[in-house]
Amino acid sequence: MDCEYKGIIAALTTPFENEKLDLEAFKQNIRKYNDTELSGYVIAGSTGEGAYLSDEECIALIRTAKEVSSEYKKIIAGTARESVVNTVELTNQAADAGADSALVCTPHYYKSKMTSEALKKYYVSVAENSQIPLIIYNIPQNTGVSVDQELVSFLLKHPNIQGIKDSSGDLNFFEELIPHIHSTKSFLLGAGNLMVPGLIMGAAGGILRLACVLPKLCTHLHTLFEQKQWDQARKLQLDLVPLNQAVTKKWGIPAAKYALDLLDYNGGPCRLPLLSLTPLAKDEIKKMLQQLNQL
Amino acid sequence: MDCEYKGIIAALTTPFENEKLDLEAFKQNIRKYNDTELSGYVIAGSTGEGAYLSDEECIALIRTAKEVSSEYKKIIAGTARESVVNTVELTNQAADAGADSALVCTPHYYKSKMTSEALKKYYVSVAENSQIPLIIYNIPQNTGVSVDQELVSFLLKHPNIQGIKDSSGDLNFFEELIPHIHSTKSFLLGAGNLMVPGLIMGAAGGILRLACVLPKLCTHLHTLFEQKQWDQARKLQLDLVPLNQAVTKKWGIPAAKYALDLLDYNGGPCRLPLLSLTPLAKDEIKKMLQQLNQL
Amino acid sequence: MDCEYKGIIAALTTPFENEKLDLEAFKQNIRKYNDTELSGYVIAGSTGEGAYLSDEECIALIRTAKEVSSEYKKIIAGTARESVVNTVELTNQAADAGADSALVCTPHYYKSKMTSEALKKYYVSVAENSQIPLIIYNIPQNTGVSVDQELVSFLLKHPNIQGIKDSSGDLNFFEELIPHIHSTKSFLLGAGNLMVPGLIMGAAGGILRLACVLPKLCTHLHTLFEQKQWDQARKLQLDLVPLNQAVTKKWGIPAAKYALDLLDYNGGPCRLPLLSLTPLAKDEIKKMLQQLNQL
Amino acid sequence: MDCEYKGIIAALTTPFENEKLDLEAFKQNIRKYNDTELSGYVIAGSTGEGAYLSDEECIALIRTAKEVSSEYKKIIAGTARESVVNTVELTNQAADAGADSALVCTPHYYKSKMTSEALKKYYVSVAENSQIPLIIYNIPQNTGVSVDQELVSFLLKHPNIQGIKDSSGDLNFFEELIPHIHSTKSFLLGAGNLMVPGLIMGAAGGILRLACVLPKLCTHLHTLFEQKQWDQARKLQLDLVPLNQAVTKKWGIPAAKYALDLLDYNGGPCRLPLLSLTPLAKDEIKKMLQQLNQL
Repeated sequence: MDCEYKGIIAALTTPFENEKLDLEAFKQNIRKYNDTELSGYVIAGSTGEGAYLSDEECIALIRTAKEVSSEYKKIIAGTARESVVNTVELTNQAADAGADSALVCTPHYYKSKMTSEALKKYYVSVAENSQIPLIIYNIPQNTGVSVDQELVSFLLKHPNIQGIKDSSGDLNFFEELIPHIHSTKSFLLGAGNLMVPGLIMGAAGGILRLACVLPKLCTHLHTLFEQKQWDQARKLQLDLVPLNQAVTKKWGIPAAKYALDLLDYNGGPCRLPLLSLTPLAKDEIKKMLQQLNQL
Repeated sequence: MDCEYKGIIAALTTPFENEKLDLEAFKQNIRKYNDTELSGYVIAGSTGEGAYLSDEECIALIRTAKEVSSEYKKIIAGTARESVVNTVELTNQAADAGADSALVCTPHYYKSKMTSEALKKYYVSVAENSQIPLIIYNIPQNTGVSVDQELVSFLLKHPNIQGIKDSSGDLNFFEELIPHIHSTKSFLLGAGNLMVPGLIMGAAGGILRLACVLPKLCTHLHTLFEQKQWDQARKLQLDLVPLNQAVTKKWGIPAAKYALDLLDYNGGPCRLPLLSLTPLAKDEIKKMLQQLNQL
Repeated sequence: MDCEYKGIIAALTTPFENEKLDLEAFKQNIRKYNDTELSGYVIAGSTGEGAYLSDEECIALIRTAKEVSSEYKKIIAGTARESVVNTVELTNQAADAGADSALVCTPHYYKSKMTSEALKKYYVSVAENSQIPLIIYNIPQNTGVSVDQELVSFLLKHPNIQGIKDSSGDLNFFEELIPHIHSTKSFLLGAGNLMVPGLIMGAAGGILRLACVLPKLCTHLHTLFEQKQWDQARKLQLDLVPLNQAVTKKWGIPAAKYALDLLDYNGGPCRLPLLSLTPLAKDEIKKMLQQLNQL
Repeated sequence: MDCEYKGIIAALTTPFENEKLDLEAFKQNIRKYNDTELSGYVIAGSTGEGAYLSDEECIALIRTAKEVSSEYKKIIAGTARESVVNTVELTNQAADAGADSALVCTPHYYKSKMTSEALKKYYVSVAENSQIPLIIYNIPQNTGVSVDQELVSFLLKHPNIQGIKDSSGDLNFFEELIPHIHSTKSFLLGAGNLMVPGLIMGAAGGILRLACVLPKLCTHLHTLFEQKQWDQARKLQLDLVPLNQAVTKKWGIPAAKYALDLLDYNGGPCRLPLLSLTPLAKDEIKKMLQQLNQL
């Protein structure tokens, strides 16, 4: 496997103070992540409340990340907008600000019109006008839109499309796709619970929210897999399930940020309308981290 | 019924030339609409490809609409963004540019977290910080998020929330809601096929994509209803079904724009990834307009 | 409108005692319904827990209904099974037992294979082998399968298919369909909240669970509509909304049976796994009936 | 792992001639399966068109299977009916006819009422009244109903519930569940594409439609897994994907039966409304089998 995007990439949160970007807190987080085995960072993606940021804020985050990131970490910017023109513009601004590539979620507002043909047109048009390579981002639970094997096989032949992050949790899709992908392109898991099952089937790595909370356990899981220590890998994967569910399906980003606060990163509040955790939920997060010997 | 928003309001399309706003074409359209019985215009809503516009483009459209609109037409701006801060900012810019009120779609990217509690917080926060009143916009087929009767009853008690546009097509929701709405607040239908059924049950009017294509037939339908000419109203409603489906579920905005081109308005292309109509679809639109004696 | 199936038809519940059919209780109910303006009864349909009955039990119910029904009431049997052979067999047994026609729900277990082509084959095969006419039954909220206008237009041309009961609550579908239906065929509403909106658009009548609980109010609503007393019809329709929701979406058949108990019909328990109402739900039902001056 | 249900269990098809059971053809198939490493057979399940069979036909199939099966194969009968009483009755008849256990799909017709509480009541009531143990069957793509971890953890504590077959394809659910299952209870995969990923995470085996078509390749895959021959297991798993999709999502049972015909088993037609394959689909099936060196 000689693809460029592989291993464990953390989807980073965006720190706010009084609903404004807190770039200093963001820098402190990145400096800590620099000491890990993470292979890259996603900035302003779903985890980074990218949908809640203005274009200017996205660019400020990327510029800041570029400034303080270790040179060994890929910087991947969430730059999807609904239209081709807006996505191209933001992607090229991100490139200027230092992003290595762009993670581009399927457009979805006009759901019933986002046919394979429309999505093909979208990704090809963006790829041909972007200064940096794209990674397709499939997250049907947020978008209500799904890509299929035929579309993605076609798109991954484009020289400016480097891979796909799939958060659907559907390994069928991956298995249908994998024989059609050239080895320089990356299938990246977006579902933290599927690391072991997905890696064994040939995924290049993962882009995970869980990895911003527990970067070391996530990269350790990857190492166990590479060393073919199946039993330990399986055990760690199962141990991570409750926290992974907590920071995704169950409570989402507010839970990830609360866990970060407990772990001496800068978590902080989310922008509204994402609500704060209840005290009960906070207790459960704390217990999960204790269970994992992180507190 | 002494609510402010009533009758037929047209959701306007946004003309583009080479993927750029064509404000001159937009003005020409509005001048024609000024001669109709429409009671208002929605600018930069779903029909206006609002999801494909930058904030600056939205504001330019509103400013232009304000400039040329008849004083008797309400100007309603589509100003929803996913976060409270961004929505408040755009809404207040829209107010400065001349909008009378804002049509605010439910936030939806973090779907599973958009509980009634989160949506309540969103709308109340936006309402309390906006210089112009809000109209809630429910369009689950695009957003995957739905409001319910209890939430909307609560929100419509807020002095800065004037009404709701419901495009769900679900009259059950309306019937559950209507006894809880004060007569100064408006339930506006967003489904063109439900005008007669909805008006008879007490809707204040409708905000319709169909009304930008066929403003006169839509306002005539409303007049027939007011005059209790049921048989004619029913007949016209049924006659309008095929074109209404064509410009919404079947082909969407590109069909509305093509119909406008045929009717001497400025339709033109959509922004990508909304695709152009096939020749076959164009033929069908033409036949539908002939059937309605509009060509 | 000279179609045979029209007006208000009640979907009847099935009384049980100790999980066994209570045919005596069933007879008592029907004798009371005979004194109403209902135009027919559905036996062993969704409301009758048809999915919970053996074929023999279905036939016993039909035979009993035939025995005690007024000759002016249509007897419609719920006879859908998943396969053509089983449906034909049960339908013909129902015919022998005295049913005037059969209400046949879309097959749905192999959901993704129930294409329009498969549904067409199903209904045509059943229609051609049945001794009594069919009424198509569309209830996507239970089946996950929907019919469309083109399919139903085709099927309603068949001499042994008399109409469609649509419980989807989607008036769009009805409006698309109505111009394609011959006046001898019936579009019957299956959504109690849509009586006034649906009748004004041309529905022949309704098959309603609400009508087994409140037969007189339902037929009165129909009379108000026929007398063009719109304001009163609208008011009554809105008054009926809470109870209609209670016996369908909110609590379902157990709520309908509890209301029957309160109204001196034989309601009784449902078969498991339909659970009994909580005391709180019972209180609410009681209040709704008081609100409607029925207690 | 000392659970009773493990390894590869084939879901068997039901041969028909002129829409009637062909028990002789069924026997011939089973005699062939007896020579494989399959650990059991499901009779009258989803693959066996169980939804299209009368109770008498189900029992005839079980009796026949019992008659000719090798004593080393488990006989599992699909006995779910919508109500508790009907399911108990059929399950006990199946026990009398020789079934070792019953595969019981979630009830689903009254979808919105099938809460965790209702499903719990259903399974506990059936378990307590059945002479043979149950296996819970979760197949949301057919039923529109899903079980969750908490419910299944509870149910698997019941002495007369032996395991769960999960066809959802969602490994998250499995990972959440697995720490809560006692080692005598079985998690059985129902998704042919997830054998390798699921086994590595701890599944006891699989109940697969694919295994009735390709019993030897499926049991070989399991052997490769047990021998920790990961690369070969992964390769075989990926090779099986196209045929697995063909006999499930893409064309379903008719494709499985056609493949059986090509492989000298008795496939034959399905009952209507399951439609026959097109010539094009048949060609593709043939090519898939050639690709796998089975023709």
